[in-house]
Amino acid sequence: MVLGFDPDYQLLPPQVREAHPRGAYGSDEEMKAACYREFLLAILESAGEEAVAVKMQIAYFEALGATGYRLYEDLVGPCRENGLLVIADVKRGDIGSTAEAYAQAHLEKAAVDAVTVNPYLGSDSLEPFLRRVREKGKGIFLLVKTSNPSSAEIQDLELASGGPLYARIAGLVNEWGRGTEGGRGYRSVGAVVGGTHPRDGAVLRAMMPGVPLLVPGYGAQGASARDLAGLFDKGGTGAVVNSSRAILYAHQKHEDLPWREAAQREANQMRVALWEVAKGG
Amino acid sequence: MVLGFDPDYQLLPPQVREAHPRGAYGSDEEMKAACYREFLLAILESAGEEAVAVKMQIAYFEALGATGYRLYEDLVGPCRENGLLVIADVKRGDIGSTAEAYAQAHLEKAAVDAVTVNPYLGSDSLEPFLRRVREKGKGIFLLVKTSNPSSAEIQDLELASGGPLYARIAGLVNEWGRGTEGGRGYRSVGAVVGGTHPRDGAVLRAMMPGVPLLVPGYGAQGASARDLAGLFDKGGTGAVVNSSRAILYAHQKHEDLPWREAAQREANQMRVALWEVAKGG
Repeated sequence: MVLGFDPDYQLLPPQVREAHPRGAYGSDEEMKAACYREFLLAILESAGEEAVAVKMQIAYFEALGATGYRLYEDLVGPCRENGLLVIADVKRGDIGSTAEAYAQAHLEKAAVDAVTVNPYLGSDSLEPFLRRVREKGKGIFLLVKTSNPSSAEIQDLELASGGPLYARIAGLVNEWGRGTEGGRGYRSVGAVVGGTHPRDGAVLRAMMPGVPLLVPGYGAQGASARDLAGLFDKGGTGAVVNSSRAILYAHQKHEDLPWREAAQREANQMRVALWEVAKGG
Repeated sequence: MVLGFDPDYQLLPPQVREAHPRGAYGSDEEMKAACYREFLLAILESAGEEAVAVKMQIAYFEALGATGYRLYEDLVGPCRENGLLVIADVKRGDIGSTAEAYAQAHLEKAAVDAVTVNPYLGSDSLEPFLRRVREKGKGIFLLVKTSNPSSAEIQDLELASGGPLYARIAGLVNEWGRGTEGGRGYRSVGAVVGGTHPRDGAVLRAMMPGVPLLVPGYGAQGASARDLAGLFDKGGTGAVVNSSRAILYAHQKHEDLPWREAAQREANQMRVALWEVAKGG
């Protein structure tokens, strides 16, 4: 399971907000960043035990400007020290030297293990990322089929050569990742496939053997554990499922528990449910 | 003309680098950010006179981490005080509440006038940006056909319904921007169309009347002023052409001039050349 860091001030446990009153900080952003820091480090210590990786959704950090960006960079170390891989969900995509700057920013300066990348600009936009896959053991996940309702508008467009656009992108992911196989036969060039499209997901799983899938959409976005069954391979591996809000804000569901325990309880239940599905149980 | 801020430490005038020795700063990033700040503010004062907008390529700022992100935010005010619009070239694209966080980060917190957006995730990923177009007078530019060589791999894919993918995206840009017309008949929902594809560009210009085009690829990327002729409408408007490196690093071409003047000279020559092409001269 991947633990998603999508911090949202309004949804934090009231205790966290109360511990950081606005008056104690120079700005709203500094106050919120202090809340996020305390909250996410505590979640890491509790629910992190159930996870293999943390996925940081950088948009929520950017929303606090440079102060939030600093927090994004600061959290990478603690996640790794807790034995978790760090995936920066940045969905960047740009050309030539600009792509190089993005790869440098996230895979080197922020030093995360993997990033998500938008493929719309084609292979030269990926080259700086792929170089760091080959030379520095980093990973990337290309957006193939996203979990949102309007993903169909563009990703499902039928091509003249047959099949939807997302299947063509899946084919390119197969090409781009050739030669990046690691110890367990999985590649370092993965794909983002939303858990909210069970049928398309199973097709994509079959189309991309050896390609690790990063699966959003579980929990708060509506996908159930059973919807995800087709995303795992026969050995029950090959997909990592992200959950952000359902874990981070589990205190709203488990009102009887302290918020750290609520998050851990929810993470544990999710891990067990996913395990059963992955194993075909 | 749009003045592109793509700061690259290696390409700065030697005088700027020498004025900020590494030892005077706490980190490499702080030293480079100090160089960029001095350099870009000087370019703004000189070459900025020839431009209508500044396009900040955020990747080069992110490459310096939080220190660079702070500089990105800090430069917006001076650009606007010089009478220029600020376009943040962020190419973001994500779903629901994440898209909301990006729109907040750039159109509100950083307070730029417009952003570039990647359309691969469909209309729900645009909604938070479109709301700020309608309610706050902001602008967006959707990636339609980018200037890089491998843009063809995905953007030119032929659809079963006829025509390439980028033309379909252009059709969506027409839909998404309906009702955002401003004083001169131009909409606040624009399109990014690379100047390196003259024939496709002219087709796209005709397909999207009233849609302002943001045109990269002029100068360093190989498009000449004549290549751009088809991107302007009959009145010689409707497109803003970006130039980054050719202006910023004009000191490498005009070795006889101080670097500020070299940038201004180059910017002036570009503006005149573009004006002649736009007017059909």
